[in-house]
Amino acid sequence: MPPRFERVAVIGVGLIGGSLALAARTAGLFGHVVGVGRSLTNLEEALRRQVIDSYTLDPQAAVANVDLVVLSVPVRAMAPVVAQCRNALAPGALVTDVGSVKRYVLDTVEPVLPAGVRFVGAHPIAGTETSGVAGATADLFRGRRCVITPGTRCDTEAVLQVRALWEAVGMEVVEMSPDRHDSALAWVSHLPHVLAFAATRALERHLPEAAGLAGPSFASLTRVAASSAETWVDIFVANRSAIARTVEDFLATLEELRHTICQATPEELRAWLEESRGAHQRQLRASKEKS
Amino acid sequence: MPPRFERVAVIGVGLIGGSLALAARTAGLFGHVVGVGRSLTNLEEALRRQVIDSYTLDPQAAVANVDLVVLSVPVRAMAPVVAQCRNALAPGALVTDVGSVKRYVLDTVEPVLPAGVRFVGAHPIAGTETSGVAGATADLFRGRRCVITPGTRCDTEAVLQVRALWEAVGMEVVEMSPDRHDSALAWVSHLPHVLAFAATRALERHLPEAAGLAGPSFASLTRVAASSAETWVDIFVANRSAIARTVEDFLATLEELRHTICQATPEELRAWLEESRGAHQRQLRASKEKS
Repeated sequence: MPPRFERVAVIGVGLIGGSLALAARTAGLFGHVVGVGRSLTNLEEALRRQVIDSYTLDPQAAVANVDLVVLSVPVRAMAPVVAQCRNALAPGALVTDVGSVKRYVLDTVEPVLPAGVRFVGAHPIAGTETSGVAGATADLFRGRRCVITPGTRCDTEAVLQVRALWEAVGMEVVEMSPDRHDSALAWVSHLPHVLAFAATRALERHLPEAAGLAGPSFASLTRVAASSAETWVDIFVANRSAIARTVEDFLATLEELRHTICQATPEELRAWLEESRGAHQRQLRASKEKS
Repeated sequence: MPPRFERVAVIGVGLIGGSLALAARTAGLFGHVVGVGRSLTNLEEALRRQVIDSYTLDPQAAVANVDLVVLSVPVRAMAPVVAQCRNALAPGALVTDVGSVKRYVLDTVEPVLPAGVRFVGAHPIAGTETSGVAGATADLFRGRRCVITPGTRCDTEAVLQVRALWEAVGMEVVEMSPDRHDSALAWVSHLPHVLAFAATRALERHLPEAAGLAGPSFASLTRVAASSAETWVDIFVANRSAIARTVEDFLATLEELRHTICQATPEELRAWLEESRGAHQRQLRASKEKS
């Protein structure tokens, strides 16, 4: 049986925060939702679209008497916003977040929480190419995976409630340590963004006129270079050590492929590429298995 | 006014060769088309789908008395197949190819052509993820770009005929040197494939279980790792020096981004990513401009 939260504060009413509010309201999980943001235009649009019931620019005013706080601001802004409203948080309140990096959030948010307030981090793995409440939809999460990363400031009930919330909006919930999450996401999300930003910039520097001959493969590689720079500064900085390690490991394999192209026999190169195709098929099955 | 070729040999009736035959027949540019291949199954399917009028396994028999030969086998197989049938090629015949690498084809095919036979290389930039005549369609080329790379064994009329042929099947034709083509394609096609094969293999080696958390960005990055290993061995080997240079240039920019993530201020990182986003927008416009 999914939980019901009578009063909810969504801090950051963007694509993810807005979609969660919509989906949870649709499913009858949220009572009154107050939105917090920096942009009145965005909050007014959220109100007009009935994503939220009311809004304020003041986090402290928003969290008074709420059962649930959803942090959906950039990960490096989470601890500052919690510090700003901590005095108004009622004991027993539950705080969760939707950040793409979990160790950083845990290490920065937990220390500023007041006693008696529980925290369970979550990362719903859903699109981030668009931003703002304009793109929010109630079915953004359906069929996708959500990672929850309990830390030291929660109890079994809190974990169950956060799990049930994400399941109720259609996600398959996986529980793991923040570090394991961050290493995995460095590979399957942060590395693709690093390569997209780098390939785009490198082409611009070395042979910009070649863009005219670009077909679907370059478009796929660089698609996410359209993502918000603000969002990705935040993620890159908050997960820099895992990303540095991942880029290092990736470079060793890239170097090996380059060497195989330049020095090996065509048969050896073919064997290398066939291994890669096999891995691709396994990865495709793993990612689609339950989505 | 597009040319008409009464007798045409298509050597290699796969996705590209088959689609060209379909499109050119539909447009009334080709009379009798004889297909040449290694697989009877594929040739019979081509005949059944009316892509070709007849077939043979013998290139020499196929090219006797033809006006046009279309080489659509892997680029490293082109010169050997031309050497095999050169004695049957009539003076005045026109040979073209559809290979993804142009310097290699020019350097290997021109020396084995008999006197009086003209050659104009072409590269219709269209999908290669699927292969075989099964995927061939008359509209594969529509709205896409085709590069032609005249060498030393052609005359103005031959260039005009090859240009007119590709324009008649819906392509925008661009003429450039083989080296310029190969450098450009190394960036916009070969590099994306190198990165896709490498990323897939690297994840498999370092953190295969992370595939379960892969979202659309990893899928985009690695999509073309599903491509035929045979095709890509061929392209990588035939264009290895341009690819090595491109990977080198790309690595310098990747290294710079890694350094910026790890060492620079968030403001510097943001400026870097914004540059990249701007370049992405320009590249998107350039590639879509006329398609």
